Amino acid sequence: MPETLSPDSVGIVIPQSLHFADPLLLECGKTLAQYDIAYETYGKLNAARNNAVLICHALSGDQHAAGYYSMDDKKPGWWDSAIGPGKAIDTSRFFVVSLNNLGGCKGSSGPNTKKPDSDKYWGPDFPIVTVRDWVNSQHRLMQRLELDSWCAVIGGSLGGMQVMQWAIEYPEQIKHALVIAAAPKLSAQNIAFNEVARQAIQSDPDFHDGHYLEQHSIPRRGLMLARMLGHITYLSDNAMREKFGRELREGKLSFGFDVDFQVESYLRYQGRSFVERFDANTYLLMTKALDYFDPAREYNDNLVTALERASARFFVVSFTSDWRFSPERSREIVKALLAARKQVSYVEIEAEHGHDAFLVPIPHYMNVFSSYMKSVADTL
Amino acid sequence: MPETLSPDSVGIVIPQSLHFADPLLLECGKTLAQYDIAYETYGKLNAARNNAVLICHALSGDQHAAGYYSMDDKKPGWWDSAIGPGKAIDTSRFFVVSLNNLGGCKGSSGPNTKKPDSDKYWGPDFPIVTVRDWVNSQHRLMQRLELDSWCAVIGGSLGGMQVMQWAIEYPEQIKHALVIAAAPKLSAQNIAFNEVARQAIQSDPDFHDGHYLEQHSIPRRGLMLARMLGHITYLSDNAMREKFGRELREGKLSFGFDVDFQVESYLRYQGRSFVERFDANTYLLMTKALDYFDPAREYNDNLVTALERASARFFVVSFTSDWRFSPERSREIVKALLAARKQVSYVEIEAEHGHDAFLVPIPHYMNVFSSYMKSVADTL
Repeated sequence: MPETLSPDSVGIVIPQSLHFADPLLLECGKTLAQYDIAYETYGKLNAARNNAVLICHALSGDQHAAGYYSMDDKKPGWWDSAIGPGKAIDTSRFFVVSLNNLGGCKGSSGPNTKKPDSDKYWGPDFPIVTVRDWVNSQHRLMQRLELDSWCAVIGGSLGGMQVMQWAIEYPEQIKHALVIAAAPKLSAQNIAFNEVARQAIQSDPDFHDGHYLEQHSIPRRGLMLARMLGHITYLSDNAMREKFGRELREGKLSFGFDVDFQVESYLRYQGRSFVERFDANTYLLMTKALDYFDPAREYNDNLVTALERASARFFVVSFTSDWRFSPERSREIVKALLAARKQVSYVEIEAEHGHDAFLVPIPHYMNVFSSYMKSVADTL
Repeated sequence: MPETLSPDSVGIVIPQSLHFADPLLLECGKTLAQYDIAYETYGKLNAARNNAVLICHALSGDQHAAGYYSMDDKKPGWWDSAIGPGKAIDTSRFFVVSLNNLGGCKGSSGPNTKKPDSDKYWGPDFPIVTVRDWVNSQHRLMQRLELDSWCAVIGGSLGGMQVMQWAIEYPEQIKHALVIAAAPKLSAQNIAFNEVARQAIQSDPDFHDGHYLEQHSIPRRGLMLARMLGHITYLSDNAMREKFGRELREGKLSFGFDVDFQVESYLRYQGRSFVERFDANTYLLMTKALDYFDPAREYNDNLVTALERASARFFVVSFTSDWRFSPERSREIVKALLAARKQVSYVEIEAEHGHDAFLVPIPHYMNVFSSYMKSVADTL
């Protein structure tokens, strides 16, 4: 809870929403006849209207990337460490737009919203959305905000995948592409983890084939398991060791199935609290978007060819202890960019935090991130 | 199904069982008043009775380590690749004993057996057993088989932990300790994976607090999830890539939640088939035995001091792509053994198979394993 707002906070923010009445054709072949996009903005659009930055969120993210909704808020937005006056994404220089993607559960059209002109929830009928669908919907949002282009599109993890797609789909409308802790596509192991998470949710008897809202139930157990599993992949083995070691919660073994080790307690807590704030159908959709992401697919499985379309400058960041999307995966992106003769800066940050590092204000990371964004601002 | 038995197979084996009427005090403080141990033997005990080898099984293993129960069997025992005439554990030279550990589900006393003098299943009332409890029960089995000692105790993964405990607890009765793909104790990440597996089982409504057998139900979904998750940790990312890549089962994306990728299909199959052959309460017990294993605990957290008690020669093997118990963890064991001035041979096998490599007849692995065991046999 911020008793007073720090000068480097964007402060109190007001969530906004736009209704889109133009049908959106999705990759799955279905069409969303109309939809809403929830978003927030931080900073001011300049007179030239050329300082707009788009933030793309990851699996469990949303439009609330920075600031507080009220002085009673316990926590700021999910990327408050990087967004604010004087921060890496400096809101005294940039006009920052952050949205909840389609299929999300924080105000944009998604499984937990009602179908148009209906009293029924979308639930499992919400179509499978892809990274490209999101980019298309973000492009429409850009137009509605009367912006010609983004001076930068920025995202970590699944967010970084949206950035890559932006650079390929709309090369003229993205000047800088910041791809953080991402991969050019998921590995079989990544897909496998997602599949276990989906099975956990879908096999929960309270899932009701996705119609749980109508049944006034929530697949708590499944969503909790999915989140616990996710957390293991977000943290490095070392980070877990540093954080919990093998510390016993009660100082001794229970010789039962209650919590023995701190790490168990942490995971259960993370799982439980996630259930209160996230929708299970959205979780399923997000994991599918991850699995399906593969921009090289329609370019003969050649990422170089795919990236040849891009004209943005790239800034790629990876973290040494990230085993979900390891530095090796970021280097694949960098190599393809170089082969496609694109301008790219690559930084591998020494960090113990695993995949989660992209959300942590690690000094070296924040320094290079800030420097890059300063250079972006200086060209405006 | 073996149409004819290969000359390097132990052939048709007959499962055996022994009843133990002497109460066994467990680490948890409870006592098993009486219990059964299911076991198998391969090869012949020599006249000097000094060629006996004990095989310790891992999480989902059992007494059936080699050979077939009948000519209709589709698969041999779980370590048939290493046990047989002329194989690494050469049954023409060794008398091999393999058992189902207490708490198991293949004939030894465990949750799926009845309590003594009762019609009730043990179920969740079966006490938490530890690696040391197992070693103590294996020691009693040794005595009942009228053996003075083992010329070698051998195990992979959780089996390797039993080997270490044997060397510490009964230094005079184990001449060679073969510790394969193990760790001196679980990491926080290892514990975290086990905890998610346990939560999957325990949160399944069909678990009925462990009393599912009496309810004529099985926590299928939970056990399936636990196994799917286990499988991810048994395979390396590379092994998964080699095995499945991102191959689509139907050649195209489904844009639904059916199986898209081969790896999903594989995991679901592994999960489903495991449910048919394994007991959920046993799975819980095995994961707790793993979590609790830490032989250094009562030696002031000093593994060197713990291992100073040992007099066996050690043979430690790890596999490069094993990320469950990485080579680094095996090197911790080796370093402690060297610091304790023990004789130790260490081999790090180049292998793509992940943790599962210890069950795979990789030529280099089988060569060094065979050589070591030949040297053991030659001293008899």
